Amino acid sequence: MIFENRNREYREFVENYLKGIYRKYADQPQKPLFEAMEYSLLAGGKRLRPIFALDFCRMCGGDWQTAAPFAAAIEMIHTYSLIHDDLPCMDNDDYRRGRPTNHKVFGEGMAVLAGDALLTDAFMIASTARIPNPARMGEAIGLIAEGAGSLGMVGGQVLDIMSEERELNEQEVLDIQSRKTGCLIYIACCLGVIAGGGTQQQLEAAGKFASNLGLAFQIRDDMLDVIGTQEEMGKGVGTDAAKNTFVRLHGLEKCEELVQKYTAAAIESLAVFENTEYMTSLAKSLTDRRV
Amino acid sequence: MIFENRNREYREFVENYLKGIYRKYADQPQKPLFEAMEYSLLAGGKRLRPIFALDFCRMCGGDWQTAAPFAAAIEMIHTYSLIHDDLPCMDNDDYRRGRPTNHKVFGEGMAVLAGDALLTDAFMIASTARIPNPARMGEAIGLIAEGAGSLGMVGGQVLDIMSEERELNEQEVLDIQSRKTGCLIYIACCLGVIAGGGTQQQLEAAGKFASNLGLAFQIRDDMLDVIGTQEEMGKGVGTDAAKNTFVRLHGLEKCEELVQKYTAAAIESLAVFENTEYMTSLAKSLTDRRV
Repeated sequence: MIFENRNREYREFVENYLKGIYRKYADQPQKPLFEAMEYSLLAGGKRLRPIFALDFCRMCGGDWQTAAPFAAAIEMIHTYSLIHDDLPCMDNDDYRRGRPTNHKVFGEGMAVLAGDALLTDAFMIASTARIPNPARMGEAIGLIAEGAGSLGMVGGQVLDIMSEERELNEQEVLDIQSRKTGCLIYIACCLGVIAGGGTQQQLEAAGKFASNLGLAFQIRDDMLDVIGTQEEMGKGVGTDAAKNTFVRLHGLEKCEELVQKYTAAAIESLAVFENTEYMTSLAKSLTDRRV
Repeated sequence: MIFENRNREYREFVENYLKGIYRKYADQPQKPLFEAMEYSLLAGGKRLRPIFALDFCRMCGGDWQTAAPFAAAIEMIHTYSLIHDDLPCMDNDDYRRGRPTNHKVFGEGMAVLAGDALLTDAFMIASTARIPNPARMGEAIGLIAEGAGSLGMVGGQVLDIMSEERELNEQEVLDIQSRKTGCLIYIACCLGVIAGGGTQQQLEAAGKFASNLGLAFQIRDDMLDVIGTQEEMGKGVGTDAAKNTFVRLHGLEKCEELVQKYTAAAIESLAVFENTEYMTSLAKSLTDRRV
């Protein structure tokens, strides 16, 4: 299947799956909550993390739809983190993906609760995955929670806030970014392997792929914050300029090189999988993305 | 073992277990996050929900310590919900258990993140439980997430906010309270059964126990809000007076009767368990609690 076709198939599947989650609860009285949750969950986006989960499952020889609950769970966690990050007491952002942020539409209290519910429900959805070895569910849940909680994504957010007043060295920037961005990509790839019944060797290779690709992704993000235009990004641009970014550390030209280097390293670790053409193309396509 | 001894043993065990969770991460740089999380997690309290989990495990004939990760997870979720409920954009409370609320000490942004991390980490801890049948981990995680998320506790919180402007009927108050308070008690009892390798019949009985006891507990809470003193409660009193409480629906005297009735119904459903003396005493002791 050519790249564009598979890409479209995955994205349409993810959109439909996410839309279906709360449809069956239409008779519940807490409609405003579901409305606030879906406002952000169904706001589009590249759906990269879910696609990683689905395709790593496929590359292990599994039916990729087996990974759907994990894929959705990760996107729900990603969405909750954006809602809470945008809150007035955090980044205080008014726009996200070209639309008013969640709290701007539904109020702060509801935005907090919508985030809380998306995070919690993510584990509900993940727990329904029919993985080849059901005894590995504990491992899968542990991977998600460790990557998203105090040791992972939330921890990275705190480190980022703590570091706002000073200049970080490269190792510190790497640590923060690998937690803030890398952890969810890591979870996505590893859960895909678990859903596909992959080997321990494949699990480790997925981890290496994710670490390298996550880095390339974050460096590109930092570059886009400098070279992007507000129209393309759908949010305020240049706000990270004074922050501890890879562009401040290395400059744009070196960053471009690093994106290529880390992407190549990611692609190398795909050697232990089957049918890697799509993932290889996807990784390459991220190196020159404009959004 | 007499009631007081077992009570003390459980509580000391829970306190030590909770203290141990973040001790092993002392070398991580995000110390302020752990500090904010532990400020609320280790603030005492009755530890009722963890005790339910431990003792239902024991009443199924299991080693009660098997339920420890579940017990801790539920207390972490309970704690996160208190931190977020107290936020300025929610109930805007300054005191909790006689101490300044989390955001008063650490700031709003950190309080949001501490709650997010406690909620996420709860699933990490829960996933480490060594239950008799590891293939039931998905079921256990599903129970937690369904009870705590949009369909359960968070949903109840939203319904509560939605109802502030009008008077509810009894069914509506029951629905809100069973979600807000009942869900976590329900999770605790059911997870104890799963950790103890209990039967489907015991799982259902635990659910019935929890539903009845949760109701008795909430009605008593509503009563205490009227008859309690600020000193005993460690938080503002009387703030719920204008809200949709059981006391407004039924008056104090009828509420007293209902507490007894629901507690008796809860105790009845313990018939399918062994060694129920402790749980029976615990349920009875909650009927005339002052805090």
